[in-house]
Amino acid sequence: MDAQLKELEENIGKVPLIVKKWATEDPKLKEWITEMDKHVWSDGKLSSQTKKIIAVCVAAALRDRHAVRAQAAGASNLGVSFDEMEEALRVSFLLAGMPAYVYGRTAIDDLMKK
Amino acid sequence: MDAQLKELEENIGKVPLIVKKWATEDPKLKEWITEMDKHVWSDGKLSSQTKKIIAVCVAAALRDRHAVRAQAAGASNLGVSFDEMEEALRVSFLLAGMPAYVYGRTAIDDLMKK
Amino acid sequence: MDAQLKELEENIGKVPLIVKKWATEDPKLKEWITEMDKHVWSDGKLSSQTKKIIAVCVAAALRDRHAVRAQAAGASNLGVSFDEMEEALRVSFLLAGMPAYVYGRTAIDDLMKK
Amino acid sequence: MDAQLKELEENIGKVPLIVKKWATEDPKLKEWITEMDKHVWSDGKLSSQTKKIIAVCVAAALRDRHAVRAQAAGASNLGVSFDEMEEALRVSFLLAGMPAYVYGRTAIDDLMKK
Amino acid sequence: MDAQLKELEENIGKVPLIVKKWATEDPKLKEWITEMDKHVWSDGKLSSQTKKIIAVCVAAALRDRHAVRAQAAGASNLGVSFDEMEEALRVSFLLAGMPAYVYGRTAIDDLMKK
Amino acid sequence: MDAQLKELEENIGKVPLIVKKWATEDPKLKEWITEMDKHVWSDGKLSSQTKKIIAVCVAAALRDRHAVRAQAAGASNLGVSFDEMEEALRVSFLLAGMPAYVYGRTAIDDLMKK
Repeated sequence: MDAQLKELEENIGKVPLIVKKWATEDPKLKEWITEMDKHVWSDGKLSSQTKKIIAVCVAAALRDRHAVRAQAAGASNLGVSFDEMEEALRVSFLLAGMPAYVYGRTAIDDLMKK
Repeated sequence: MDAQLKELEENIGKVPLIVKKWATEDPKLKEWITEMDKHVWSDGKLSSQTKKIIAVCVAAALRDRHAVRAQAAGASNLGVSFDEMEEALRVSFLLAGMPAYVYGRTAIDDLMKK
Repeated sequence: MDAQLKELEENIGKVPLIVKKWATEDPKLKEWITEMDKHVWSDGKLSSQTKKIIAVCVAAALRDRHAVRAQAAGASNLGVSFDEMEEALRVSFLLAGMPAYVYGRTAIDDLMKK
Repeated sequence: MDAQLKELEENIGKVPLIVKKWATEDPKLKEWITEMDKHVWSDGKLSSQTKKIIAVCVAAALRDRHAVRAQAAGASNLGVSFDEMEEALRVSFLLAGMPAYVYGRTAIDDLMKK
Repeated sequence: MDAQLKELEENIGKVPLIVKKWATEDPKLKEWITEMDKHVWSDGKLSSQTKKIIAVCVAAALRDRHAVRAQAAGASNLGVSFDEMEEALRVSFLLAGMPAYVYGRTAIDDLMKK
Repeated sequence: MDAQLKELEENIGKVPLIVKKWATEDPKLKEWITEMDKHVWSDGKLSSQTKKIIAVCVAAALRDRHAVRAQAAGASNLGVSFDEMEEALRVSFLLAGMPAYVYGRTAIDDLMKK
């Protein structure tokens, strides 16, 4: 993994596999997306932890089983707790229905062995 | 507005119109939903401000023009700034596409006269 | 409106504008879709009224403002009451979130002047 | 399983696993949601069977593989037939596309060994 | 497989399993849908290859794992290359988020052994 | 409008308003996104016209009224015809339901005065 991807992984918790593929397939696309990703996920008005919690809730609301697992893993790597994610997912429940919560809850239960 | 709804409005920023309708149409349903809402939105592991930011991002990701405006208004009532919401919406951009960001950004631009 | 479309309108409550456009633009496509529509919406194991209620709930869950209004109008034309649709929309609330209910409720409130 | 959950299971066909988890993790949340669920799913203007059919169609339209299986199982427990669900899913086909039908059809085929 | 389905399979790359089921369960529905399918997927202003690429991108944007695999297989049968689908999926990335791209990319990687 | 945005507008048909806002608010984010956009939309294995048609169909499938109008306008600027978009939208109809077609059709009817 090159230095840029390594720094990104430290900052955002988890680099999507696809960014690694683009590193060889299309280095320019990988470059812009990596820079953009680093910029979006880094601490700013909101902490990177808070942004990862948002990502988990958005992915759950979209019923996206790939993304919800990846984002939950990334959040956990940055120190976000099970209880923080569980509480946040209740917002997805209100906004997107009980099954959206189930998508997220299943991901964090699996990830954190509850 | 009854006392329970008034307290809810203070806690969560904005009571959905529909909860007010249920207060007369179906008081029991209104009761459970109001209690549940108060419980979900109140400070816990995450602040109610953070939860409202999550709600804005989820509503934007779902391209839900009603919800994104209501949640942004509620967030603003609780003191969340334009810049915090704008930064958070970049997560919806990554997870749900540029147009999801546009749904959210349009709502906060309109709300906060940018 | 030709005889086939007229019969369809009587059966399903409301013919989508687009089917009328296809009648001149692409008569064969209009033919198959009209036959399929008539077949799907007509009484079978479930009444056409029940199917229209389902359609309202699905459109609300998808946050589809065009479809939710069209289906609610069609349901009303077939004699479905406000209260039946309102009760059904609570299923969309549980499965797709409070804002999904709001999409549907707004449509039936507007349609039926509540 | 406590008495409230048992009654709910009899009424709605199937209690989501998550409600059982909330029974120990957050009894108040479980309480409101259980009451609300019982209220929404019970017979009213529409039968509980009809509401479960709606739920299957909404879950299929949302391409939600968890929910569509759970709701189909719940519907079946309440006596809804394969043919009623299959016919209802054609509405999801028209409103949400052929693949939405496939989500629902796969669930009921698996459940009922077709 | 009857002659109509065989011709359809040659034209559109892959006939959905469900159309085959309808051939025995509900021949009229199968008839209209087969005719409509053949009409929609055949060469016109756009080639059938281009339409299959669109279908892959739409299915990916909807995070529909059934449809994305079926459409990618159909596209491949018609001679669409991995690189054409990969490039097209970047549109789903911009419009529906990185995870939408991942849904599509996973399908074509699996299908074409990348 | 700076030179980079001007070139982008010529290439992709229409620059989203938000990219123009980012040009002053957050020039680095604007830089990466502009480069990425230019790269994704430019001719490659597929023509930029084909990619814009895909974008219209994806936006319609997502029932995204902002994006469907913006992408249809961009497609038209690049010389894509009404009939090409209309034919492409039939794929959204099959994959995402009749109302998805209506979202797209409404946009192109409005844009091109049909």
